[in-house]
Amino acid sequence: MRAEIIVIGSELLLGESIDTNGPWIAEHLRQIGIDCHFKAVVGDNLDNIANTFTLALSRADIVLSTGGLGPTQDDISKDGLAKALGKPLVFDERLAERIAEKFAERGRNMSENNLRQAYYPEGAKVLATHPGTAPGIHYTISNDAGDKQIFLMPGVPSEMKLMMSESIIPFLLNLLPNPEQVFTRTMKCWGLPESDIAEKLKTINDELDHAHNPKLAYLASGINGIKVKLSSKNRTLAEADQLIDPYKARIVEILGDYIFGYDEDSMESVVASLLETAGLTLALYETFSAGLVSSRLNELTDSTPYFKGAVINHDSNNIFTKLQDTAEYFGADIALNVSEVTRTERNITLALNLYHGDTQLTKEITIPSFSLGQTRRFSVINLLNQLRLYLQKRP
Amino acid sequence: MRAEIIVIGSELLLGESIDTNGPWIAEHLRQIGIDCHFKAVVGDNLDNIANTFTLALSRADIVLSTGGLGPTQDDISKDGLAKALGKPLVFDERLAERIAEKFAERGRNMSENNLRQAYYPEGAKVLATHPGTAPGIHYTISNDAGDKQIFLMPGVPSEMKLMMSESIIPFLLNLLPNPEQVFTRTMKCWGLPESDIAEKLKTINDELDHAHNPKLAYLASGINGIKVKLSSKNRTLAEADQLIDPYKARIVEILGDYIFGYDEDSMESVVASLLETAGLTLALYETFSAGLVSSRLNELTDSTPYFKGAVINHDSNNIFTKLQDTAEYFGADIALNVSEVTRTERNITLALNLYHGDTQLTKEITIPSFSLGQTRRFSVINLLNQLRLYLQKRP
Repeated sequence: MRAEIIVIGSELLLGESIDTNGPWIAEHLRQIGIDCHFKAVVGDNLDNIANTFTLALSRADIVLSTGGLGPTQDDISKDGLAKALGKPLVFDERLAERIAEKFAERGRNMSENNLRQAYYPEGAKVLATHPGTAPGIHYTISNDAGDKQIFLMPGVPSEMKLMMSESIIPFLLNLLPNPEQVFTRTMKCWGLPESDIAEKLKTINDELDHAHNPKLAYLASGINGIKVKLSSKNRTLAEADQLIDPYKARIVEILGDYIFGYDEDSMESVVASLLETAGLTLALYETFSAGLVSSRLNELTDSTPYFKGAVINHDSNNIFTKLQDTAEYFGADIALNVSEVTRTERNITLALNLYHGDTQLTKEITIPSFSLGQTRRFSVINLLNQLRLYLQKRP
Repeated sequence: MRAEIIVIGSELLLGESIDTNGPWIAEHLRQIGIDCHFKAVVGDNLDNIANTFTLALSRADIVLSTGGLGPTQDDISKDGLAKALGKPLVFDERLAERIAEKFAERGRNMSENNLRQAYYPEGAKVLATHPGTAPGIHYTISNDAGDKQIFLMPGVPSEMKLMMSESIIPFLLNLLPNPEQVFTRTMKCWGLPESDIAEKLKTINDELDHAHNPKLAYLASGINGIKVKLSSKNRTLAEADQLIDPYKARIVEILGDYIFGYDEDSMESVVASLLETAGLTLALYETFSAGLVSSRLNELTDSTPYFKGAVINHDSNNIFTKLQDTAEYFGADIALNVSEVTRTERNITLALNLYHGDTQLTKEITIPSFSLGQTRRFSVINLLNQLRLYLQKRP
């Protein structure tokens, strides 16, 4: 089954906003094995919307649109679909009541315009209601060659996602003769370039190229590390894990300490849980990183217990004395710092400094000299990785 | 003239990446008065690319594609265009030499694959070379109804932008009978909701709705404030300013202190230059804001002279004592802090604290209680705005 996505809204053709709905929809279709062959972005123009639906229906089995279901005059996705289908728009009393109720529940006034949302193309079904007031639309075209399914969803991402997850994906899974989903296990690496990781995993890669299931993929994600992904198409997660687990174990064995986390882990969350497990607390003396480590750690909502505080200063003299002072000031066990050692036009060498009572460690790394902001972000992940390795190697 | 954008790359249909090139191209076409009616996203499939070009050429005067010009087997945009045009791909010796030279200059090995980039559809022109190795393509179709222009650009954003700015936009401006661009002057506001700003500017808005040029628009930009934009279509910036300036002066008069900056200003850059002008230095004692103010200020590359340092601590007792200690520790004139006062399910009240020797100010603000990260970001902009108002009102 082939799908096509239609994103509706003039703001997208004016360059005022960027479409993130389309990629989300495409990814979630792919997870259930449905390929998307085209995405069209069209403005709030009746003929253009109608023509885009007609074209999509000529070449896809499933057409999903997002946007243009709101109450204002330029929300005309349903009008466009009705025109493409040659159907009239009909008014649904029950739907109108439901919309009125939503406004009443929220204590908001409903304008006449809101009743535009109670119209839909004749023969369409209204999708189960969700928090938003814009009802989704489902239309089925049946003919000898099989059915085609059309779904109209709102453009508000949270409403679209809920409608996809709770109504459309389950419906589509039911249509599939052999419903399978793509399950993925991710290993997150730091400290090796992507090409070296690929080299180390060459044997496994060759085996899997031959076997096809699971698949192995690499995704460089900047300062979030390099993701090594094993993905498998199966009916259940348990089935997928059975296929994935032996390869995962081999990869973990090969990459060892370069793997800092799995799936939803971030470098910050890994460091946080290692500190918690070890019962250790942390302070920072930030020079080169200029407050960025603190703000990253503080983005973890529960960072308070282990992260005691930081001093941000430009002075990078006597780092270990400063680290000791900082640790004592905040009553923390470990203090961290990243400082600049040397800089050329192309590269910058940084010292990752760790103080833990009698232990004083420095590891130097050389990284490309990007923009200041980017070099700082790289320094942060390297500093936290140094702390991770230190904590993981403690007896 | 109508334009259509084609974005080529399977990764965009797999949900793995988000198209930011399309919006950028659309915005820059709009600035020279060219409307974009459709954008199509298509994968690396020869027939699908060819069909997408054919369709675009049937309804647009200018077709611009991005992506699929690289050296690998799945870069087939030129093949797709050649198929749509019914032209063969031809090999260009000179282009091949130029590509080989680029590799030599960089001391990199060139593989046979790289010579794929020396092919283009017969009759096409190669766009002036730019830093990347992927040459852009320009093809003109002439017929009785007038010319159609086709441009193929690489997908790497920096290369695409350079090609647009230096080759394609100037070419298109030359085609336009009355070449005009949209010039915009932006006033950035903080402290008033968008609806209140619109209310205050109602008279001017009504006048401009009638006059059409310049246009007035509002754009809420989260923690970057609310942008009030005056834009005008003119041949030169001087002409635009002549139209815009009188309205701008009236808006500045009406909004007064709510305007924190203009055009490229950010709250941070405005505060930085006010501190510099006043010859004052700053330190931070960050509790609620958790290091975020420091990292924002440090993103300004030249923040060192006025920003002395910060202490990040969870302890928010005796704020003014802590602010005084912090100012003394870093040798700074002014110290800032934002702390939490009360919190309900919906709202959070923050105290913006400013210490400057004998001056100790606190201003309380109540903002919606978003996620922790978002509430912190809002606290930062409010804190910096408080400092701005303090510095601007100094005698």
